[in-house]
Amino acid sequence: MTIRTLIWHEHRHEKNNKLVASLYPEGMHGALKKAYAGHSEFAVDHALLDDPEHGLTVERLAKTDVLLWWGHTAHGEVKDAIVERVVQRVWEGMGLIVLHSGHFSKPFKRLMGTPCSLSWREAGEVERLWITNRNHPIAQGLPAYIEIEHEEMYGEPFTIPEPMETLMVSWFEGGEVFRSGCTWQRGAGKIFYFRPGHEAYPTYHNSQVLQVIRNATRWAYNPGPAWTAVAEAPNTPHDKAPVPLEIKGPRLHADGEEGYR
Amino acid sequence: MTIRTLIWHEHRHEKNNKLVASLYPEGMHGALKKAYAGHSEFAVDHALLDDPEHGLTVERLAKTDVLLWWGHTAHGEVKDAIVERVVQRVWEGMGLIVLHSGHFSKPFKRLMGTPCSLSWREAGEVERLWITNRNHPIAQGLPAYIEIEHEEMYGEPFTIPEPMETLMVSWFEGGEVFRSGCTWQRGAGKIFYFRPGHEAYPTYHNSQVLQVIRNATRWAYNPGPAWTAVAEAPNTPHDKAPVPLEIKGPRLHADGEEGYR
Amino acid sequence: MTIRTLIWHEHRHEKNNKLVASLYPEGMHGALKKAYAGHSEFAVDHALLDDPEHGLTVERLAKTDVLLWWGHTAHGEVKDAIVERVVQRVWEGMGLIVLHSGHFSKPFKRLMGTPCSLSWREAGEVERLWITNRNHPIAQGLPAYIEIEHEEMYGEPFTIPEPMETLMVSWFEGGEVFRSGCTWQRGAGKIFYFRPGHEAYPTYHNSQVLQVIRNATRWAYNPGPAWTAVAEAPNTPHDKAPVPLEIKGPRLHADGEEGYR
Amino acid sequence: MTIRTLIWHEHRHEKNNKLVASLYPEGMHGALKKAYAGHSEFAVDHALLDDPEHGLTVERLAKTDVLLWWGHTAHGEVKDAIVERVVQRVWEGMGLIVLHSGHFSKPFKRLMGTPCSLSWREAGEVERLWITNRNHPIAQGLPAYIEIEHEEMYGEPFTIPEPMETLMVSWFEGGEVFRSGCTWQRGAGKIFYFRPGHEAYPTYHNSQVLQVIRNATRWAYNPGPAWTAVAEAPNTPHDKAPVPLEIKGPRLHADGEEGYR
Repeated sequence: MTIRTLIWHEHRHEKNNKLVASLYPEGMHGALKKAYAGHSEFAVDHALLDDPEHGLTVERLAKTDVLLWWGHTAHGEVKDAIVERVVQRVWEGMGLIVLHSGHFSKPFKRLMGTPCSLSWREAGEVERLWITNRNHPIAQGLPAYIEIEHEEMYGEPFTIPEPMETLMVSWFEGGEVFRSGCTWQRGAGKIFYFRPGHEAYPTYHNSQVLQVIRNATRWAYNPGPAWTAVAEAPNTPHDKAPVPLEIKGPRLHADGEEGYR
Repeated sequence: MTIRTLIWHEHRHEKNNKLVASLYPEGMHGALKKAYAGHSEFAVDHALLDDPEHGLTVERLAKTDVLLWWGHTAHGEVKDAIVERVVQRVWEGMGLIVLHSGHFSKPFKRLMGTPCSLSWREAGEVERLWITNRNHPIAQGLPAYIEIEHEEMYGEPFTIPEPMETLMVSWFEGGEVFRSGCTWQRGAGKIFYFRPGHEAYPTYHNSQVLQVIRNATRWAYNPGPAWTAVAEAPNTPHDKAPVPLEIKGPRLHADGEEGYR
Repeated sequence: MTIRTLIWHEHRHEKNNKLVASLYPEGMHGALKKAYAGHSEFAVDHALLDDPEHGLTVERLAKTDVLLWWGHTAHGEVKDAIVERVVQRVWEGMGLIVLHSGHFSKPFKRLMGTPCSLSWREAGEVERLWITNRNHPIAQGLPAYIEIEHEEMYGEPFTIPEPMETLMVSWFEGGEVFRSGCTWQRGAGKIFYFRPGHEAYPTYHNSQVLQVIRNATRWAYNPGPAWTAVAEAPNTPHDKAPVPLEIKGPRLHADGEEGYR
Repeated sequence: MTIRTLIWHEHRHEKNNKLVASLYPEGMHGALKKAYAGHSEFAVDHALLDDPEHGLTVERLAKTDVLLWWGHTAHGEVKDAIVERVVQRVWEGMGLIVLHSGHFSKPFKRLMGTPCSLSWREAGEVERLWITNRNHPIAQGLPAYIEIEHEEMYGEPFTIPEPMETLMVSWFEGGEVFRSGCTWQRGAGKIFYFRPGHEAYPTYHNSQVLQVIRNATRWAYNPGPAWTAVAEAPNTPHDKAPVPLEIKGPRLHADGEEGYR
């Protein structure tokens, strides 16, 4: 078993901001890759916004089991057609891990169907992520909570659909709380949102944060074949029904006709 | 209390097809209005695809408590900007009842974030909708199941997010099943999908079907003020935090700056 | 419409502890009653642990629409047979609002099927309850958060089934968080757990806390008839099936026989 | 990795009924064992009602990763103390697969907190289980539906808590439907209810049924260490809080005191 993991990164802050460049000399995607170092079941690569097709060709997505997504300043530059590709692959069974400011990314908003809004503050305050189920696969090996010395604050209301599991809840020094580790299922795909990771702090060098990401990658992996027909609406004719039927009453559609969309 | 109810209808089949015109001489929207006849807490109107702005101006949506949606052949003609209006109003607290082929309507797919696909067959077969919680507000006054003599079949897999409540499940004569009455919460808005209502049959003259729709309208009604800021991401500065803070560590954002989207 | 509301209270602390007696001279149930003062749709009474049958006769429960529950030191004294009565009524459609230390009450643990454990501390610290959906019926009329100057801390993990809605999340001064306002549906009954209300503090004199309780009582009210058969397992004989059948294959049960339980 | 799987079986029908004895000469547990034949990651054993302590000693449960449960005529003979052991182990992380008439078993009702009632008929009719998410781990390798020639009917309303996932829905020849494959999470434990398996039919010789059971065993397996403290309510003193506190306001509890239960 190999979990083909693709880290998608906007990769703009590192180019435009000395602070971020110094925190992440190999890029935030470079730091995220270290989550998987020494764990041979992962095959890890990255894709960047400025790559052709944002590094997300049809072929590459077809070979991706779990996609990570970090974006912030350039959500609007991500092309809608490529967003639809990503979304289709999630429905087909690709796992998706959305990180921090990715709450406002196009793929996440598209899959949630809600604003995904929140309140925020950049003050370098303490964040403490409490785990509601310490034996969940995503929480393996972690203590009762993860404490991060400096983080950006995200506060409720976080306008998401009620999660399948509210696995982590954050406490912030300034007085707010946030549902910071949440799972959903959409089609055959599993989705995990994980809050930490502001670009101005060294969060992705924190081994516990990386462990959550590695655990979540395993959790999101679906070994089944891609459900490529997930968005189709097949007609099952009357004589091919599990219980074959005679047609009764009037009809609008002719035999073999496709449904309206 | 008045529940301002707006029935949105595509209203094309009645114009193009004699059968549908004869079944629904006042339009399907005319038949749906009868769900509310004699119930004074409802103020009911309709809006049609071919009305200016599809009958869904900002002003009118702002005065709508619960919106019904029936569409089929012309989903693609509904303008995206108007879909966004509808979706925003659901997030703000407007109830939404999506009927039958509306599973593929733009507002429903937008709010679900999934394909909303299914299998189907037009053979006039029996549908029997079983109720999983007979004391749910949407099921008030109904027997253990609703039986409809002739309906179009919709079969699983219905690719929706796991509902908040799977309230009704349909049995079809040809051997399929379908989750035919499902609820979700999105932002402050409550959503109900209700399966029956193929245009080739007199389903919306069935008093039990109309009772479900009337019950669901009451259920979906949110008496609170509109949550107009639901999609905003306000900054809470360090000195206005519930526990006022000094800024620690580095920063990317200047005071008063808006977040990236 | 009248919502027949019954406040169940252990009522031991007020008798045994001068502090609690001075905070709640009319008992905690007396303070809770004030949540409904001036709201004529409620008919409110109380029942106490030391009443005959804990004040929860079959007849009285049958006339109760919404039950509140506060207990702490004497959970073990509540008779199991009466717990079953309460639980049956919830399944039938009675609303249940469980307050604070009621997380360890027999009815709540019985309905959740989980330990309902948590961590705790009595240090008079600040609690701030953030609301995730400010237009939810239970949150009507409230600001973005409720702040309570002195409260007992309850911390995660709170071992409950994933709620239908995680409506409130608490921040505590000492660094913990807690899912402090949660909803569930069990049978026809709606359940709300609301965290605040330690007996050593004047929490139930806080008008915002009382407003949540009043709102929740309206939310939990089910106007439908009691689903008295909710726990029965009726046999539907082959010749009374919706689609009448001939019996095929072998059988173990004779006609008209009851199922095993 | 070895998944230590324990098949708990009532094992009464085979002794008292010639039909069942002939269908299951090695017992139903013997047939269920074949689900795992040739799959080396499973270590499978069985435990029977009439074994000492029902075969469920503390030691044995501690070494069980996933427990299957089939019971019918003798639910009432299962000792409450042993039910509590099973439930505690589920909370700690042991997977539980409840089969068919186990819907009325003590462990399942205890974990659900609802009646778990349904309607039923023994007429040897066709059951067809439709799968809502064909790429779910429990559905791996299966077609769109499983068809069983002769089965007992179970019909809605099935009074369970809303599942985490409604993975399978059954169609019955006589006209009923049933949510026949449902998942829940309770504490650290995953639970799957799977409907088929009436003792009068050879259902557990059906390779697709066995595949669901094998898949579900993998799905329910939690590799993490047992969460043995899941039901404890630890005190975190003020000076050991994540943010150490001075005590403010009055107190009822002395330092180091245990909470009430």
